[in-house]
Amino acid sequence: MNTPFKQRRRNLLSRFAPAEIKSLLITHPADWYYLTGFTGESGAMVVSPRGTTLFTDGRFATQAREESAGVRVVLQKSSLFESVGEFFRYEATESVGFDPAQLSVAQHRTLRRVAGARVRWKAAGGLVAELRMRKEPHELAVMRRAAILAGAVLEGAASLLKPGVREFEIASEIEYQMRKRGASGPAFNSIVAFGERSALPHAPPTAKRLRKNELVVLDVGAILAHYCSDLTRTFYVGRAPVRIRECYEAVKEAQTAAIASVRSGAACGDVDSAARQVLSGYRLDKYFVHSTGHGLGLEVHEEPRLARGQKHRLEPGNVVTIEPGVYIEGIGGIRIEDDVAVHANRTEVLTRIPRDLIEI
Amino acid sequence: MNTPFKQRRRNLLSRFAPAEIKSLLITHPADWYYLTGFTGESGAMVVSPRGTTLFTDGRFATQAREESAGVRVVLQKSSLFESVGEFFRYEATESVGFDPAQLSVAQHRTLRRVAGARVRWKAAGGLVAELRMRKEPHELAVMRRAAILAGAVLEGAASLLKPGVREFEIASEIEYQMRKRGASGPAFNSIVAFGERSALPHAPPTAKRLRKNELVVLDVGAILAHYCSDLTRTFYVGRAPVRIRECYEAVKEAQTAAIASVRSGAACGDVDSAARQVLSGYRLDKYFVHSTGHGLGLEVHEEPRLARGQKHRLEPGNVVTIEPGVYIEGIGGIRIEDDVAVHANRTEVLTRIPRDLIEI
Repeated sequence: MNTPFKQRRRNLLSRFAPAEIKSLLITHPADWYYLTGFTGESGAMVVSPRGTTLFTDGRFATQAREESAGVRVVLQKSSLFESVGEFFRYEATESVGFDPAQLSVAQHRTLRRVAGARVRWKAAGGLVAELRMRKEPHELAVMRRAAILAGAVLEGAASLLKPGVREFEIASEIEYQMRKRGASGPAFNSIVAFGERSALPHAPPTAKRLRKNELVVLDVGAILAHYCSDLTRTFYVGRAPVRIRECYEAVKEAQTAAIASVRSGAACGDVDSAARQVLSGYRLDKYFVHSTGHGLGLEVHEEPRLARGQKHRLEPGNVVTIEPGVYIEGIGGIRIEDDVAVHANRTEVLTRIPRDLIEI
Repeated sequence: MNTPFKQRRRNLLSRFAPAEIKSLLITHPADWYYLTGFTGESGAMVVSPRGTTLFTDGRFATQAREESAGVRVVLQKSSLFESVGEFFRYEATESVGFDPAQLSVAQHRTLRRVAGARVRWKAAGGLVAELRMRKEPHELAVMRRAAILAGAVLEGAASLLKPGVREFEIASEIEYQMRKRGASGPAFNSIVAFGERSALPHAPPTAKRLRKNELVVLDVGAILAHYCSDLTRTFYVGRAPVRIRECYEAVKEAQTAAIASVRSGAACGDVDSAARQVLSGYRLDKYFVHSTGHGLGLEVHEEPRLARGQKHRLEPGNVVTIEPGVYIEGIGGIRIEDDVAVHANRTEVLTRIPRDLIEI
């Protein structure tokens, strides 16, 4: 099979000279999947012009050999980072890059101790994240399917919202339906929040039963062929009071403005501002307690971040969520979230279900 | 409500003098839940004799205030670790403990830069993990229920093992049934591995269909009221060949020997050896590619580890898995796993379903 992994490793190697490194230690599972196809949960990887070496333990040995063509697999002896340190002790005296956000203080200490003083460790964060930000056509094709799958699952779950149903029953059904439709699982713990609980942006599902005249926030994402989707809709059980409807329309207007501001070349902070300014016009900005969105791909939260002051400029291939919300303690929350892909001359909304407030 | 959190924080404070620290930075979600009840996914916590401070962001603000009685909640400004660093800049010039396994190199750099040179950072790993190892009676009561729940779900899933069914269909059903029975979700991605795939100890479920004359490994765990269970059984579709049956009996004998060696005062490495020696007698030890077990509690993998050479001695309140297995490429895998609690004078197997090979 013609896999993209070798080309990705080549692209990564071309970044080594500007970063002043001779090899790169990769300690983040999504990064090593991106570069080699290895899906094991424990390991470490070294990429250098002389080849790629994957360190893992016996549990993942067969998997590593089957999945990672062209990669040397080394089974760790005592501990993972002692094995990696030993590798560098004998194989390198040069500059080794690592991502300081993905290596613990303890792991770093072990590496320095075992590898010895000749190895120079150089913080080189985000090299793989930068490659991962620009999705390839094949990745975008999978993400379209993941987004549509999430939409179908969310609409199915909405049809079960009847007074008396419990939050965790809806959450179960969401994750069951995802798998039935081919997802390997949820991209995160599904959020099913009824009434006042919807004012918690990250509420875990409980045994609470749905009642009349309550808001409902459903936030669901599926992993399909390794890629994530992330989608939120808000519902009202009964006829929504004017105040709720006004809030909903303000959030929708904020989301529309943010989506309109997404284009190649736009600064991420400006997309965040676009949503925030609309809510400010309705004096709701103080209830918008998180950022406007985040990158999406092999992980449900990745680069770029659409938050205040973020200077990164969007590029073709970026996929981001746009998810403004307002959360009022004692009343509830309203959030609308879609997934958006940036192309050279246009913006593509991957999630396709209607965005209007649905009264149940 | 009378919660255990305050007493746990008191127990932790009594460890500060021996560790030569005046306050402790806690950066691991299971640790901050254990100490305060906060279930948010992002934050950091500082425990000191002057009180406990929880840093988090707007998404978790209401949740933090509702869940964490007696704890000061600080909403982070720019970044989480800049806010924590600022706190120490003004509030402490003393020794601050942190767990080097739970802090990234980047976070540590931010803390040192922002807090300034007067703060002394002292590696003090495992202080909370040591408390968490000794389960309280209330915790054991919950873990018994979580173990029984996993057993019921596994037996239900086994009844669906018919030729033609796909791995992910069984996985879906497992997680759906867990939630229906009150679990908040699976403790890990359920392992459903048919035929040759069962030789991968951590196989993710695929679309593979079950065929006659195949081994099946089901490894499931539920989170019930925050506590995990972890249970594995192996099945054979059809009449198992003599060689498979012999392997199965060897693994079962290894597990029985390991469980028999679990007692207060026993070294963890000796429990591992007990299983390994039995398999060695059958020349199967080279196929046993992982350790015998691990601690279980708020996390599915925690202290103590039952692995080669581990010197930690078991104590009353420890809960561990005992899960020897053999994995033969091209044939399949056999693993039997139960959860075991250590008491002063006896060992309690929490998982209660039969351990014999079931032919389907």
